[in-house]
Amino acid sequence: MTFEIRKVTVLGTGVLGSQIAFQTALHGFDVTAYDIDEDALTAARDRFAKLAATYRDEVPGAADGTADKTASSIELSCDLAHAVADADLVIEAVPEVVSIKQDIFKRLSELAPERAIFVTNTGHLLPSELKDFTGRPDKFLALHFANEIRERNTAEVMGTPETDPAVYRAVVDFAAAIGMEPIELHKEKAGFLLNSMFIPFTNAALGLAVDGYAEPEMIDKTWRIGTRASMGPFQLLDIIGFNSAYNALSSGNEDEQRFAAWLKENYIDKGKLGVATGEGFYRYPANNTTEA
Amino acid sequence: MTFEIRKVTVLGTGVLGSQIAFQTALHGFDVTAYDIDEDALTAARDRFAKLAATYRDEVPGAADGTADKTASSIELSCDLAHAVADADLVIEAVPEVVSIKQDIFKRLSELAPERAIFVTNTGHLLPSELKDFTGRPDKFLALHFANEIRERNTAEVMGTPETDPAVYRAVVDFAAAIGMEPIELHKEKAGFLLNSMFIPFTNAALGLAVDGYAEPEMIDKTWRIGTRASMGPFQLLDIIGFNSAYNALSSGNEDEQRFAAWLKENYIDKGKLGVATGEGFYRYPANNTTEA
Repeated sequence: MTFEIRKVTVLGTGVLGSQIAFQTALHGFDVTAYDIDEDALTAARDRFAKLAATYRDEVPGAADGTADKTASSIELSCDLAHAVADADLVIEAVPEVVSIKQDIFKRLSELAPERAIFVTNTGHLLPSELKDFTGRPDKFLALHFANEIRERNTAEVMGTPETDPAVYRAVVDFAAAIGMEPIELHKEKAGFLLNSMFIPFTNAALGLAVDGYAEPEMIDKTWRIGTRASMGPFQLLDIIGFNSAYNALSSGNEDEQRFAAWLKENYIDKGKLGVATGEGFYRYPANNTTEA
Repeated sequence: MTFEIRKVTVLGTGVLGSQIAFQTALHGFDVTAYDIDEDALTAARDRFAKLAATYRDEVPGAADGTADKTASSIELSCDLAHAVADADLVIEAVPEVVSIKQDIFKRLSELAPERAIFVTNTGHLLPSELKDFTGRPDKFLALHFANEIRERNTAEVMGTPETDPAVYRAVVDFAAAIGMEPIELHKEKAGFLLNSMFIPFTNAALGLAVDGYAEPEMIDKTWRIGTRASMGPFQLLDIIGFNSAYNALSSGNEDEQRFAAWLKENYIDKGKLGVATGEGFYRYPANNTTEA
């Protein structure tokens, strides 16, 4: 069986959901963006307008009106039944709360056409934790995007043991079709590939700073020169934002909780949350801030 | 007290010792290179000639005869007493065997002038493990270079609690004077800064490959895109060389020994040792090989 994907519904129009919807629409798919009420949809319209401006400035080939056309092509709906009625693919990007995700897949299982593939954008759960709520575990897997998908365009594709290989391939092809680099995992792994490396790496870097071996600037310089990287761990944490790092660390092991407390005391409590607030481990000129 | 450094003796003319001697001479210091016998010195002469050719091709400003003059300016000696008789700074770059290092510092303590600063290039030992053999713990610390120092020009500077802060500063200044980026550590840390991050990072990457989550190419791509790096973990391991990685891993914990066995079985036993042999995780065209 082959799966043709033309109509895509994105559930959730937050920072990442709106980027996914926009990127998908830009590549010629029919996109419907769903969120819970009219207020959320108003915020979504703003996000799409801002994304159109960003793409106009930054993305080659999007300066000729394409970006604006893309923004206006996205259908917005707060009626879930309507939003998914004719979907070939539903991309779930609702808040990272297991009960919210389970609930929406349960509702979807009854509202979406039988042919529809469901993917979750979760970065913290395994698709196995959600599959039994989808009513179609063979047509369900994870498709995990990074933030600022037009630049950091990985799409990690991770199925469960029940995912139909043809569905997996269709989602890999879809990811490539919207300009992503599909990252194929052969089996489930908490943290997928990127965070499975990024977390031990940044924990090691945090340990060096928290325990007083060296300053963040010195640690970053070491990494940049030693590994030919453009950014060190603290520069990357500034981009990710400290709230996100703090949330992950504070639910971790003893060392991680210690790092979380250090981040809170020395940065978060002083309003330094990274690039988004103009200061984190480094200072950023006002015109250089970026969406968190 | 201030320390003036003009005459520098480098002990050991292996891959890294020869690079350190050459780089130091290139920046106008009087350099003596010591090794154990005439055979070793003959090999050293070859290394300096090759380095001269490399610098001529790759280092701006070294194409006008400077590189050749540098190579011929280095005094070679297998007489330790002669080699260090008038040294302001002795850089130890002998094999990473604790007894060899302790022995040479014991001999040095009697042969070098009282004013001479001693530094060890060790990457695996702490300077505290060597300081009692130097006869001058206040004038002793670690100055750790990475391989291919003209490109990866970090010099990690790490003292013991007994190191005189003025000596520490003098070594930091010396590192900068020979074109290194001094990386200042405030206290002793096994693995210094770079390996304290690099090892957890590459272990995480190896775990993903060894346990079958994804292929090295996919893991590297994820890292490059996700962190804006020019190279992923497996590309970096190819540069470092698998013998070095294997030695470190095989003396490690249970997981690390498992990774070592995997490296041996799938790569080392097949003659694939990384860039130096033309193939590691990736293949390298013959004209692109680099010294291990």
